[in-house]
Amino acid sequence: MNSVITGTGSFIPSIVKTNADFNEDRFFNAKNEPFEAKNEIIIKKFKAITGIEERRYVEDDIQSSDIALLAAQKAIKDANIDPEELDYIILAQNFGDIKKGTIQTDILPSLAARVKHLLKIKNPNCVAYDIIFGCPGWIEGVIQADTFIRAGLAKKCLVIGSETLSRVLDMHDRDSMIYSDGAGACVIEQKESGMSGILSHATQSHTYDEANYLFMGKSNIQDADPTVRYIKMHGRKIYEYALTNVPLAMKKALDKTGIAIGDVKKILIHQANEKMDEAIIDRFFKLYETPTPDHIMPMTIHKLGNSSVATVPTLLDLVIKGKLENHEINKGDVIILASVGAGMNLNAVVYRY
Amino acid sequence: MNSVITGTGSFIPSIVKTNADFNEDRFFNAKNEPFEAKNEIIIKKFKAITGIEERRYVEDDIQSSDIALLAAQKAIKDANIDPEELDYIILAQNFGDIKKGTIQTDILPSLAARVKHLLKIKNPNCVAYDIIFGCPGWIEGVIQADTFIRAGLAKKCLVIGSETLSRVLDMHDRDSMIYSDGAGACVIEQKESGMSGILSHATQSHTYDEANYLFMGKSNIQDADPTVRYIKMHGRKIYEYALTNVPLAMKKALDKTGIAIGDVKKILIHQANEKMDEAIIDRFFKLYETPTPDHIMPMTIHKLGNSSVATVPTLLDLVIKGKLENHEINKGDVIILASVGAGMNLNAVVYRY
Repeated sequence: MNSVITGTGSFIPSIVKTNADFNEDRFFNAKNEPFEAKNEIIIKKFKAITGIEERRYVEDDIQSSDIALLAAQKAIKDANIDPEELDYIILAQNFGDIKKGTIQTDILPSLAARVKHLLKIKNPNCVAYDIIFGCPGWIEGVIQADTFIRAGLAKKCLVIGSETLSRVLDMHDRDSMIYSDGAGACVIEQKESGMSGILSHATQSHTYDEANYLFMGKSNIQDADPTVRYIKMHGRKIYEYALTNVPLAMKKALDKTGIAIGDVKKILIHQANEKMDEAIIDRFFKLYETPTPDHIMPMTIHKLGNSSVATVPTLLDLVIKGKLENHEINKGDVIILASVGAGMNLNAVVYRY
Repeated sequence: MNSVITGTGSFIPSIVKTNADFNEDRFFNAKNEPFEAKNEIIIKKFKAITGIEERRYVEDDIQSSDIALLAAQKAIKDANIDPEELDYIILAQNFGDIKKGTIQTDILPSLAARVKHLLKIKNPNCVAYDIIFGCPGWIEGVIQADTFIRAGLAKKCLVIGSETLSRVLDMHDRDSMIYSDGAGACVIEQKESGMSGILSHATQSHTYDEANYLFMGKSNIQDADPTVRYIKMHGRKIYEYALTNVPLAMKKALDKTGIAIGDVKKILIHQANEKMDEAIIDRFFKLYETPTPDHIMPMTIHKLGNSSVATVPTLLDLVIKGKLENHEINKGDVIILASVGAGMNLNAVVYRY
């Protein structure tokens, strides 16, 4: 018995925010001091490290559950299933719905319940819940769906990742240029035969020293209101953490399968920083004393930034649908999905397409 | 193989808010009109229906993850395990951490990650995540822990429910008198032998008509700020929903076990409304054409109100520890845990102690 991804979908918001759009913003460091460098220089350096040229924001009247619905509808259509047959809707998020112009996270009811409502599903045995697990939440949702299928609790699951980071970013923090909005989804089904499916997975939570690497904090501008908080990160620490731990988790997952490193066709990794992702992949192949192959790692970060839980499912959808140049996944290909984020959490799934 | 609850713990906040403490408040209906009746009359009627005389609020410097820690520590001590052995920390919540005097939900990182940090657990293979599933979130966490154990992913899980509803209530809405703060937890372990453990479970999500029965809305006071929202409910609809569906879910779970209704010793049900709970239990026994036995349903609502995800684990802890008059659970007793809340979601677990 295998847990097979039978459909994918993603929604890429329409508002393109380019790096140049930050030229007139006023950035301060965490001590509320302005940077000596001009914005043009800050942005150039930012792009050199992260690779990000553009990111996407949702329209003012849109919330996270709205774009979650759009991604879900595409995945359901792609899988060609009746949504009434779904046993679970698992939605990964970290900030819930936040209306434009407000600062409150709204997760009452859960975003999964909202999506189920918007999908007009009547079946009460379709259980809808949200998982909060940082950026790796969508992959963890996939692992949970696989577990429910293996345990006989489910035959068909919808797993969604949706986030509107544009609603929680501090416009006076240069790190905010990383964040983007988006939603991605997949349908996972139990299949009795065939080679395709989830082959293995690995998850870790490091919280002893790492719990506050991503956190909610006040704006970097002087005399900021301490009761209004934004997404904040200790970028250097996250970089080192990810570089140390993500390759080991991917190796742990791959080694469980017995599949040789040379048979891995693609690695779809959370997009937070291009240099970091390249370093992670290089270190991963180094663990196998193998040079990093060309075109192993499709990247969307240049145009889509970091959309948290939406990044990996969006990347998967784009590659499967042949929408990323030089990248395709063919029947039988072994791929690895991996993510890292707030918690700190990380995970990896080895999948045969 | 069984999933056995080996330890329980709860934390009951220290601030007692009595019904009389609402005497001077100004209540309005959803149309922002003041009630004709005096507060004393409103409160008397409120108590007659809900049974609530008092509820508990946390101190100003305390947040949900703080009380989650206290309940978790007690459960771990009660189970007599080394916290480093935990494979999962599953934390059910619906509003995250909210600092007194602010309106923002903080779930970055997840509350489970915060509790793992505060427990000083170093083991990175202890996976910490939050589940958002309305009031039934803690029971659903128990079901997920059971699933992980049965799937071979875990041997020891900590499941916590923690909520500070005092931070999201509208003081101009009489429904707010229901809400309370609290935290409860249990340790669930895989046991190879013995009769104790989770025997069956059932879960449903009704979202077609029911998704907004509990929701975030603006204050009932005239000219309220629409950007500040509070927990709101359609009480009558929830009452009817729960009465129709909870007995059926409990029956579904019990019938899976083949255990006779007469062998059920206690039913621990979410405490939102005494009259509603009594009606649910009566209807449940009616499904078996059996009169409702005396002392089948321990109640904490009179003194503790509705503390959301914390209610059932707190009730379980108090009954197991012999702290509720006329109620005890003895080795071999079959009990049912059941809950209903935002989503709308409901669930039931049949457990042999």
